[in-house]
Formats: sequence, C-alpha cells, structure tokens
Amino acid sequence: MSNRRWILKRRPVGGFKDGDLEFAEEAIPAPGEGEALVENLYLSIDPTHRIWMTDVAQYSTPVALGAVMRGYTIGRVLESKSETLKAGDIVFGRGDWQEYYRAKAKALTKVARQGDLPLHVHLGPLGNTGATAYFGLLDIGHPKPGETVLVSAAAGAVGSIVGQIAKIKGCRAVGLAGSEAKRRWLIDELGYDAALNYRDGNLLEAVRAACPHGIDIYFDNVGGEALEAALTLANLHARIVICGAISTYDDIVEASGPRMFRNVLMQRLRIEGFIVSDYWPRFPEAFAAIGGWIDEGRVKYRMDVRGPLAEAPNALKALFSGGNDGKLVVRVRDDQAD
Amino acid sequence: MSNRRWILKRRPVGGFKDGDLEFAEEAIPAPGEGEALVENLYLSIDPTHRIWMTDVAQYSTPVALGAVMRGYTIGRVLESKSETLKAGDIVFGRGDWQEYYRAKAKALTKVARQGDLPLHVHLGPLGNTGATAYFGLLDIGHPKPGETVLVSAAAGAVGSIVGQIAKIKGCRAVGLAGSEAKRRWLIDELGYDAALNYRDGNLLEAVRAACPHGIDIYFDNVGGEALEAALTLANLHARIVICGAISTYDDIVEASGPRMFRNVLMQRLRIEGFIVSDYWPRFPEAFAAIGGWIDEGRVKYRMDVRGPLAEAPNALKALFSGGNDGKLVVRVRDDQAD
Repeated sequence: MSNRRWILKRRPVGGFKDGDLEFAEEAIPAPGEGEALVENLYLSIDPTHRIWMTDVAQYSTPVALGAVMRGYTIGRVLESKSETLKAGDIVFGRGDWQEYYRAKAKALTKVARQGDLPLHVHLGPLGNTGATAYFGLLDIGHPKPGETVLVSAAAGAVGSIVGQIAKIKGCRAVGLAGSEAKRRWLIDELGYDAALNYRDGNLLEAVRAACPHGIDIYFDNVGGEALEAALTLANLHARIVICGAISTYDDIVEASGPRMFRNVLMQRLRIEGFIVSDYWPRFPEAFAAIGGWIDEGRVKYRMDVRGPLAEAPNALKALFSGGNDGKLVVRVRDDQAD
Repeated sequence: MSNRRWILKRRPVGGFKDGDLEFAEEAIPAPGEGEALVENLYLSIDPTHRIWMTDVAQYSTPVALGAVMRGYTIGRVLESKSETLKAGDIVFGRGDWQEYYRAKAKALTKVARQGDLPLHVHLGPLGNTGATAYFGLLDIGHPKPGETVLVSAAAGAVGSIVGQIAKIKGCRAVGLAGSEAKRRWLIDELGYDAALNYRDGNLLEAVRAACPHGIDIYFDNVGGEALEAALTLANLHARIVICGAISTYDDIVEASGPRMFRNVLMQRLRIEGFIVSDYWPRFPEAFAAIGGWIDEGRVKYRMDVRGPLAEAPNALKALFSGGNDGKLVVRVRDDQAD
C-alpha cells in the first residue's frame, strides 16, 4: 500500500497546466504521539489553490516546489495516537492532495454531520464555503432590508449561498454567472431577483440595468471588470466585500488595481477583504444557521463531485474555466464507502 | 462698486493652467427674503478645487463652465434679511471665489471664534481641514495605542493635524512630505516619530525602513505611489483611510487603481473613503477637541495666507506643486480689517 499524491512540480505561468503538478507515490506515513493517520475521502477544490502555487506573499506561505499540493479535506481516522480521536472519526483538516496524511489531533476538527446529508456537504454549504458566504455577507457587508446585493461568481460555491442569505435578510439579490444555465439556476432555483451572464456583451450596462437603485453591497469573488462595474455603480456608503479575485489569480503579482477606484472617495465606499479562517471560532454559528435554512428549504446548493484523486488537476482546471456546476470536490477513491 | 470673481472659463486638461479661470466682475448681488449678503474675507484653497473643475461624477456637481469657481469662505455679513443673522456676523459658507455673495441664512454657519486666534484658523485646524483630520483618523482609522500611522501629505493642512492626533492617541506617526524643510518640521515641531521626503529615491523602501513594524493605519491624501507603498506594507487588518488622492486629480477620469490591491485580500484590509461634510453635525466635537489641544500646545499648525483674490489661481497652483507651507487661504482684499 502506498500514498498517492500530487506534488507541485513547477510554478504555473499564467493558467494552471498539465505538468505543473506531478502524480507521485510515497509510503503511507505513520502517526506519531498525539497524531492521527487519516484516509482522505473528499478534497475541496478552491480558487485559492492557484494562489498557493505562486511565489508571492499571501495568507500563508506558498506551496514549496516538490511538496504535496495543499488542500482541505474530509477524511476518516484510520489510526489515532491521541485521546481526542479514535479510528472511524470523520475529520476536517489540511489533508492536502493525497490519499493519506498524518496530523496533530488538535489540528483536526470532527465533522458534526447533519441528518442524512452527504458527507461532502461539509466542504460546501456546511463547510468553509458556507461559512465564507455567511460571515462575508453578514459581518463584512452588513446587509439591511431593501438593499441591493450584487454577487459575482454567483453560481459558485460561495456566491450561491451569499445570494440566498441576502434574500433571507430582505435584500434584493443580483448575480453574475458565466452561462445561461447558471443564470437560470440563480433565478429559478435560488431566488435571485436578477442574474446576468457576464459573457453577454457590456457588463457595466447590464449590471446598471439589473440594479436600477444602484449597488449597496458588492460581494466580490472575481475582481477585474466585475469589481470595476460595482465601483462604478456603488451607492453612497456601499460596502465592497473582497472575498476573492479569481480573474486575477493567474497573474496576481502584476494585476493592476481596479479602475474607478476614485469612487472610494466620491461615494465614501468601504472595501474590505476577509478570510474565513479568521472566523473559525464562530463556525458553529454559521453552520447552525445555514443548516436550519437547508432544512427549511430556504438554502439550496449543488455539489459537483468528481474523482478519483487522479482527476484533481482537471477539477481545478474546470473551476478556472467555469466548467463546474456547484461546489467542486474530489472523491478521493472510487471504491470508498462514503 | 462691483463684485470681482473668478469664472471657470475652460476645463483644465492635465494640470490647472492660467486661462482656465478668468477674472470677471458683476454687480454686487442683493439679498432676498431669508438671505444675507456676505463680504468674503478668506477663501480656502483645497485640492478638491481641481476635481470640481472636471466634468466627472463626484461629491457634488462639477462647476459649470461660465460659473463662478466654487469654494468655501469665511466672510462678514453686510446686510441680512433673516432674523438669524445680523450685519457684522462672521460666517462660514460656500462663498466661492469672489468678493461678495448672497446666500440663504440657513446655509451659513456662524463662526465660533476661539480666544484671539486669527480668523483664518477657522478654515484650517478649527475648520474643515481640522475636522477632516479628526474624523478621518478617529472614526475611519480607529487608532489604537502602539499602532503605526502613516500619513501622506503630512505637512499639509490635513496631514499635519492627523499626525499630531495620532501621537495624542498613543500611536507612532510617520509622515511623507515633499521637501527637507517640511520633513524637519514634521519631526522637530509636530512630533512625528519619522518623516520622509517622498522625492528622495525609492519610496517603498524608505517607508519600509521607517515602519519596521509595518503599517496599521494609512491616512491617504495623495493616492498613487504612496498608496501602493502602504498597501504593500500594510499589516493584517490595517485600515486605509482615503481622504484624498491629489496625485490623481489632474487625470482623475483615467486614473488606474492602485497596484498591490491584492493585499486587500491577503492582509484583510479595510479601505474606506469619507468626506468631512458627512460629519457636519459633529463638527463642534472636533473643534472642542482640537481647540483644547491647540491651547495646551499639543497641536500646532501653519497657515499659508496669500492674497488678494486675484492671486487665488496662483495659490491653487502652489498647492498642486507642494509650494505651500501649511493650510492655504487667500485673504480676499488687501485692505480688509480682519
């Protein structure tokens, strides 16, 4: 038995390509004192993977060349040398792009499963991306009833939840997505008041038409042209929540700042970036709320489950081309029970 | 008797030039019911004059071609048709670049003079620029003792007050200025902990050296390269107070956004723009505080008083070349009593 894993072979130039990662094997590690050995079940595929591949100052350190690709996973404890975990426990952790990992027990979080929801939902609406939507919109955006909330990548893992929470809070939700099918999903299933395919012609004018009362909150997952449109149309004292900037990640070192930055001054805007891990102690609050809304049918979601681990690079490529359909996860092995 | 005034003749292309404004005369206006006729004594010269000359969406409307140039003044009531004002009252208002104006009494604010301070101080530390420093630093920046506060245009009307309030609040104050004399003034007189001449070589590296613990608050009056340096060196959860962006005003329509905008995400920054007029109801709080600090010798200031009104365009040019020495005001007539 060996541990298959994806190694960062070279740093991507521009878009992530085949050969930037290399599939390799090593012996399955043995847990030390206070540690657990975990079998990965689901790997979360996220835009930030592209940042981690770039040698630039960032949230954490870049992934080193030759090291296993970093990633968050849900897995099952196979062996524990800690009193707080036992074999069979389901845990969330930084399991990386591989089949097995060992970690300090205190770095692992037991997953509190809800009802009979699939396990991978705890990498989506009841995981990091759900918490990201929850804290980003509520704690950074401060939505008030009647306000217009514009969301980019609105059919994505985070954006799809943001719009639904905005509706629950009495706001008007307007979404940007990358296909007609996604646009329809936002309106027909998620309850967005309006949605645009950003690939259809003049984005600024389309957003202007969809936001006749301007924009009070812009929840940004993409940066670039969408951010510039939001800055252009922002109302007085609007809040710009910077959650991500996926359109810039292929060239993040050289990315220019948004045009229309002058409106920060003219419209007295607040632009604020955040990272969900800063809210870690409050995750139970987010999951209780979102879990309740899921039970009540007020929050819907889609999981885009691919696999096995060998397919992870293709999943990442799909994320950057918009080829995913909901929160992307990789089911690590075809033959796993969950 | 006539009313001499500066008319916006053409919109500047790039920097403001002779001929963009035209000196003209009209009959002195007569006040209507509820109005007062005011003789301007001091005209405040501010960076925002350049924005008002540009046909771009902004705080208020641009000045129309052929209209008198907009400006804030302190003047004396000559005639009143309102019960709330009487001849001789000293008032702050939008008196514009002219010798006389009429206005609704409710649009005028009586100046509450402090001790025997010169009248023009109420266009500086005890006027709009003082209030700008006070609310921008305290309400937008939220300084905490021990934090590093970087201020651009630190020898200017606003920046000079910002640094001194930062010191009063227990922060480390670092200033950017445009000459060795200003740099020395910041350190020797105002108590800045460090100050840089931004014209000396590599700004980013100089700021890095002057801020060994990074930047917690950046109070921005200039935009451009200084803002980019601050974004580069901003600590986690730093606050970027956008008060002005004078380096961009000559081409504000085309100005690009700041590079290193990615750090909004990486460092979870908050960038917030403000305009002091939003704080109008709280001005007495600012003036009480700053007035007290002036009395105690804890806040110092310089007024750069020029005149008469014919010199106003040259004063504005001096402001944009950094040729001023403190808060710039124009004393409207050489023969006036105050």
